[in-house]
Amino acid sequence: MDLTQFSYWIGMAGITAFAVTAVLALATRQIDLFSAVVLGIITAVGGGTLRDLILDEPVFWLSDITYIWVAMIASLIAFWAEPLLTRKEIHSLLLYVDGFGVAMFSIATINKVWNLGYGLPLAPIILGIVTAIGGGLLRDVLAGRPTLLTTTELYATPVLLGCTLYVGLIYLLPDHRLVSAISCGALIFGIRAAAIHWHLTVPSWLITKMKQNR
Amino acid sequence: MDLTQFSYWIGMAGITAFAVTAVLALATRQIDLFSAVVLGIITAVGGGTLRDLILDEPVFWLSDITYIWVAMIASLIAFWAEPLLTRKEIHSLLLYVDGFGVAMFSIATINKVWNLGYGLPLAPIILGIVTAIGGGLLRDVLAGRPTLLTTTELYATPVLLGCTLYVGLIYLLPDHRLVSAISCGALIFGIRAAAIHWHLTVPSWLITKMKQNR
Amino acid sequence: MDLTQFSYWIGMAGITAFAVTAVLALATRQIDLFSAVVLGIITAVGGGTLRDLILDEPVFWLSDITYIWVAMIASLIAFWAEPLLTRKEIHSLLLYVDGFGVAMFSIATINKVWNLGYGLPLAPIILGIVTAIGGGLLRDVLAGRPTLLTTTELYATPVLLGCTLYVGLIYLLPDHRLVSAISCGALIFGIRAAAIHWHLTVPSWLITKMKQNR
Repeated sequence: MDLTQFSYWIGMAGITAFAVTAVLALATRQIDLFSAVVLGIITAVGGGTLRDLILDEPVFWLSDITYIWVAMIASLIAFWAEPLLTRKEIHSLLLYVDGFGVAMFSIATINKVWNLGYGLPLAPIILGIVTAIGGGLLRDVLAGRPTLLTTTELYATPVLLGCTLYVGLIYLLPDHRLVSAISCGALIFGIRAAAIHWHLTVPSWLITKMKQNR
Repeated sequence: MDLTQFSYWIGMAGITAFAVTAVLALATRQIDLFSAVVLGIITAVGGGTLRDLILDEPVFWLSDITYIWVAMIASLIAFWAEPLLTRKEIHSLLLYVDGFGVAMFSIATINKVWNLGYGLPLAPIILGIVTAIGGGLLRDVLAGRPTLLTTTELYATPVLLGCTLYVGLIYLLPDHRLVSAISCGALIFGIRAAAIHWHLTVPSWLITKMKQNR
Repeated sequence: MDLTQFSYWIGMAGITAFAVTAVLALATRQIDLFSAVVLGIITAVGGGTLRDLILDEPVFWLSDITYIWVAMIASLIAFWAEPLLTRKEIHSLLLYVDGFGVAMFSIATINKVWNLGYGLPLAPIILGIVTAIGGGLLRDVLAGRPTLLTTTELYATPVLLGCTLYVGLIYLLPDHRLVSAISCGALIFGIRAAAIHWHLTVPSWLITKMKQNR
C-alpha cells in the first residue's frame, strides 16, 4: 500500500469518526434523524472542505462521493446506536476515536498543502489545524454549544505541536516522510489520549486568568 | 418562458423570502437599520454562495448584482413594515413564504449541480440542502438563536425527501424534468405547509430521547 | 510610497489590530495560549479570506505568509500583555485601533473589488463590509458572544456610509482615488471614534422596537 492509498483510508476513517461524534454531540438534545444525518455529513467533511476552499483545490468529496456515503452511513448508525454509544465507557472510547481522526486529518492536510507549496512553512500548519478542528467548530456553533476554543481542554494544543513538528521533520528529513507522518500523528493522538485518560487540561500558566471586569 | 428564465425568477422570489424572514427573525431584538439590511443580504444569498463556493462556480450574485438589489430592498421593506409583518396571522404567512423559498432553492440547486455532473447522485442532494437551509443557519448563528438543526421542527426533513425524490426522477424520467422539478418542489412546500398549519413535528420515533446525563 | 505599498502596510496594520482585539475579546474567559493564537490568526485573516473566496481570488495570506506571522506574533503579544491591555484606558484605545482596522480593511477591499470590476456598484460595498466585520463575526460566533449585528453599537453603520461614499467618489472623481480613499477611511474611523468617545448608539428611529411577543 503506497502513501496515496494510505492517505485515502486515513481520510475515510477520519470521516467516520467525525460523523459519529457529531451525531452523538447532539444526542443530549432532541434531534430528528434527518437533521442528525445532515449535520453528521456537514461536520464530517467540514474541515476538509474549508481547507480545499482556501487552497482553491476541488472539494475532495465532489470528486469522490464515497466520503459522503461513508459519513451518511456512519451518521445513521450513530443515530440508531446512540443509546449504546453514549454509555460512559463507550463515550470515552469515542473521545479517543475523535482524537485519532483529528491526528489523521491534520497530518494528511500538511501533506496536501506541502505538495502544493503554498505559504511555507506556516500555511500547512494553519490548514492542518483548520482541517482538524473545523468540523468540530461547525458542529459546536450549529448545535449552540461552547466551541473547543473557549475551553481549557487539551485539544488544539497537541494538533499545533504535532503539525509544527511534522513540518520541521519534512524540512530536516525529506526522505523519511512516511515515518515522520506516522510519528507526528502518533504524537498528536498520544497527547490527546493522555489528556482523555488522566483528565489533563492545559497548564494554568498557559491560560489567561478569569477577569472580574466586564 | 423557458427553464432558464423560470429558474431565474424562482431565484429572485427565493432571495426576497429569505431576506424578509432574516430581518423579521431579528425583530424581537433591538436591531439597527443598517445591520438589518446587511444581515438580510448576507442571509438571503448565503446558501447559494456556499453552494457556488463548494462547486468552484462564480458566485451567482457577482455576475448578476440584481440579486443583491432585490435582497436589499426586501430587507428595507421588512424593516420598516416589521410592526405589520409580525402580526400573528401575517407571521404565519411568512412561514409559508419561507417554506416556498426553501423548496425553490433546493430544486434549483439540484438542477445546477446535476448539469455540472459532480458527485452523482449524492452531491446534488447535499448541495440542495446546503442551499436551502444555509441562509437560515447563518441567520440563526449570527443572531445567537438555536439553529433549526437542533429543533424538532419539520424543516430539513421535507427538503431531504423532495431532493432525493427529484434526483431519482431525473434518473428515471430524464425527459420530464420540468414536471418533476415542480412536483418535488410542491412536495417539499406541501409537507412544510402541513407542518406549519397542523403544528406537526418530526415523529417521536425519529427523534433521539433527551438524555439525563451531561 | 505608491498605492500598492500603501495598501500593503494598511493590510498589515489591520491584521495586527484584528488579532489583538480577537485575543482580548476572549480574555474574560479561560483560554489557553494555543487556542488564543489559533483564534487570533483565524479572526485576523477571516474577513479578507471570505472576500477572496467569494471573489475566487487567491487567498491573500497563501501568497504572502507574512500576514500569518504578523497575526501570530500580535496574538502572542496580546495574550501575554493581556493584564496590561485590558485596563480601562487601554481597552478604550484598543476600541479605536479596532475601528481603524475596520476602516482600512473596508476601503482596501473596495479598491480590490473595483479593480476586478465585479458586480458594480453594490458588490464592492458588500465585500467591504464582509471584510471589515467578517473577522469580528467569526470571533463572536466562535467565542459564543452576541455578534455586533444584534447590538445597537454604531459599528456596521459607519462602514456602510464610508464604503458607499467611496464608491460614489470613485465614479465622480476617478483621478483622485487616493484622496477619496483616505477621506472615506477617515470618515468611517471618525464616526466610529465619536461613537466610542461619546458612547453614541444608533438613533432610536433606526432601531426596531423590542417586541413583547415570542
